[in-house]
Amino acid sequence: MNIIEGGVTSAQGFRAAGICAGIKKDRKDMAMLYSEVPCTLAGTFTSNLVKASPVIWDMDIVQKNGKAQACVMNSGVANACTGAQGDEYCRQSAQEAADALGLKSEDVLLASTGVIGMQIPIDKICAGIRTMSGMLSDLPQAGSDAAEAIMTTDTVRKEAAVTFELGGKKVTLGGMTKGAGMIHPQMGTMLCFLTTDAAISHEMAQKALLSCVQDSFNMISVDGDQSTNDTCVLFANGLAGNEMITKEDADFEIFREALSLITKNLARRMAADGEGAHALFEVTVKGALAREQAVTLAKAVIESSLVKTAIAGHDANWGRIICAMGYSGAQFDQQKVDLTFRSRAGEVLIARDGVSTGYSEQLATEILSEDEITAIIDIKEGSETATAWGCDLTHEYITINADYRS
Amino acid sequence: MNIIEGGVTSAQGFRAAGICAGIKKDRKDMAMLYSEVPCTLAGTFTSNLVKASPVIWDMDIVQKNGKAQACVMNSGVANACTGAQGDEYCRQSAQEAADALGLKSEDVLLASTGVIGMQIPIDKICAGIRTMSGMLSDLPQAGSDAAEAIMTTDTVRKEAAVTFELGGKKVTLGGMTKGAGMIHPQMGTMLCFLTTDAAISHEMAQKALLSCVQDSFNMISVDGDQSTNDTCVLFANGLAGNEMITKEDADFEIFREALSLITKNLARRMAADGEGAHALFEVTVKGALAREQAVTLAKAVIESSLVKTAIAGHDANWGRIICAMGYSGAQFDQQKVDLTFRSRAGEVLIARDGVSTGYSEQLATEILSEDEITAIIDIKEGSETATAWGCDLTHEYITINADYRS
Repeated sequence: MNIIEGGVTSAQGFRAAGICAGIKKDRKDMAMLYSEVPCTLAGTFTSNLVKASPVIWDMDIVQKNGKAQACVMNSGVANACTGAQGDEYCRQSAQEAADALGLKSEDVLLASTGVIGMQIPIDKICAGIRTMSGMLSDLPQAGSDAAEAIMTTDTVRKEAAVTFELGGKKVTLGGMTKGAGMIHPQMGTMLCFLTTDAAISHEMAQKALLSCVQDSFNMISVDGDQSTNDTCVLFANGLAGNEMITKEDADFEIFREALSLITKNLARRMAADGEGAHALFEVTVKGALAREQAVTLAKAVIESSLVKTAIAGHDANWGRIICAMGYSGAQFDQQKVDLTFRSRAGEVLIARDGVSTGYSEQLATEILSEDEITAIIDIKEGSETATAWGCDLTHEYITINADYRS
Repeated sequence: MNIIEGGVTSAQGFRAAGICAGIKKDRKDMAMLYSEVPCTLAGTFTSNLVKASPVIWDMDIVQKNGKAQACVMNSGVANACTGAQGDEYCRQSAQEAADALGLKSEDVLLASTGVIGMQIPIDKICAGIRTMSGMLSDLPQAGSDAAEAIMTTDTVRKEAAVTFELGGKKVTLGGMTKGAGMIHPQMGTMLCFLTTDAAISHEMAQKALLSCVQDSFNMISVDGDQSTNDTCVLFANGLAGNEMITKEDADFEIFREALSLITKNLARRMAADGEGAHALFEVTVKGALAREQAVTLAKAVIESSLVKTAIAGHDANWGRIICAMGYSGAQFDQQKVDLTFRSRAGEVLIARDGVSTGYSEQLATEILSEDEITAIIDIKEGSETATAWGCDLTHEYITINADYRS
């Protein structure tokens, strides 16, 4: 399994484009993804009761048809809380793309991200669709343009790709994602588009996607706010020529492993690029009796505002970690907890059996001053483990979100 | 029912003190509360699995004895995550106070707040107890000194008192509270000490306290972090001479109303003084079918980091409010939601039936620039209502918490 440079255009038969359509000022704000042949589809969406119009559009297609051939994305406006008008704009956008690409409107997925409560500028959206349909390309740059166009407060593009073999055939899987705020572990909390030339059935693709999202996007948090627009879709066009995956066999496992590699890679990068973040904060809980217990504890720690601000201050205020575990709802014995901080600068055991080890504050501060920090929490009850990813909470988060619409 | 200037020394027979014991630098950090006669006790404590040693000490006394006569508090160190040593220091502190005041150690409650994971400086604590036991006073200033000594990142003292009549007898109820960070609605999330000269049984006092805490301290949030040290206790010494309240009669209702007045007053002030807060943010959800539904929705809105930063930026980014309601877990129909912002500067209907009214952004910004802001959310399904209190999320929250121990 080889990680390669690439993204949504790495797999055979996928083309993309990303342009400035004038929704945002002087920044790319529309993207298109297209496959030469129809794709099997898997998708998972926000569990927020309030769903954006494009989310409702896509859920319907994934559930009823399980296939699609193109996707139109915009950033700047979320098309959420926009009523019947927002739904109508979805129909118009999909029809415009279908006409331009020679498809039916139900072959076209839609995704929006940005301000909630505003209508999308439908004329600019339709003009952008016409422009992009004439410039689709399978070059890496086209994938990067698309990845850039879906960014909102993201500071870096997030793309990844991997190649592997299925029954002697070379298969490629690539993806792009966006998301820096309104990020919370519950479903794939962001926009994520994955493309592969593997041949796989809708059922197996859906199963692989749900399983991988649990351990990747559902294990990150930036601010505890779960978006109205979360969308994670996988397009599989079968052009690799492998024998179609239709059951949980060895090929399925290889495919799932590749998908897990890409989704974890993208998820980690989302956490590291959390709004205002200076550091990626990884929390591993081990020694749990049950996986769910480890997940609950790890998530509570990465979600705590007080833990996140302590990390921002390079302050080993470890009591806040034990405190967050305490209100998580999961059971554990405080008197068994060992806590270690680790980074490029070294490793230090902070607490043993629930009390301070009398560690060196200077060493702890050095370790916490790096831009990738890991906390390892051993609750010494069993052998289950979970890892979650978050980031520090800094002044820039406030600046970004207090003035988001200005 | 008359709100009066006052606090924990307003009711007959209560004395207090607050001093600099040297735990913190040049700031009051220890307080003592004492009643001339034994008190009936009611108390409610953190539901965090990780409980500080003094919380475990107090819970035991409230449950087993239901009475006490004094309380020793310190700020600076929380005595949480301190193992057997922390428990031993509790026993020593209570014994020191009992010896100085002529009581038994089980008549003395303890409360600590501050950094988690450090041992309390037991010698300073014991010296402070001896000093305070010689300077207890029933003057208002003594109550204020105590209220100041329990502050951590609080910027203002929080005291309140009320007088009312029970069967022709004048009764007084007063209280003090602290809390600005690690504040989250779940039990009385902070330290709160209430004193009254009413005669009331332990069962009725406990019932009144639990009911009032639900609608006051459990409806505020600063940062979603629930403390290890939350303590709310009510001392009732009976010196008002009213007929003992032993059942849910008219006197009980008057007493509960007075207690509700004081707990809501103190809770609002805690939210307004949230770490780094520039504005009190009150959210009322009305038109709910069930009270629990209204509570869940109101809490989700005051807890959202994105809503809180929008308030900090005086930005009517109302979609974030609907979004937070959407992930709260409570049911509602997005297409029925009306949202109004109100403050001293006026009132504006932002959304009707789930979509924007095309309101004036300038007026909305003026309204959101005040230091007390109310959002009224009508979900138009029934007649149940709930109100929650929070604050904006500002740069100062980050500054305070990134450098808390420095």
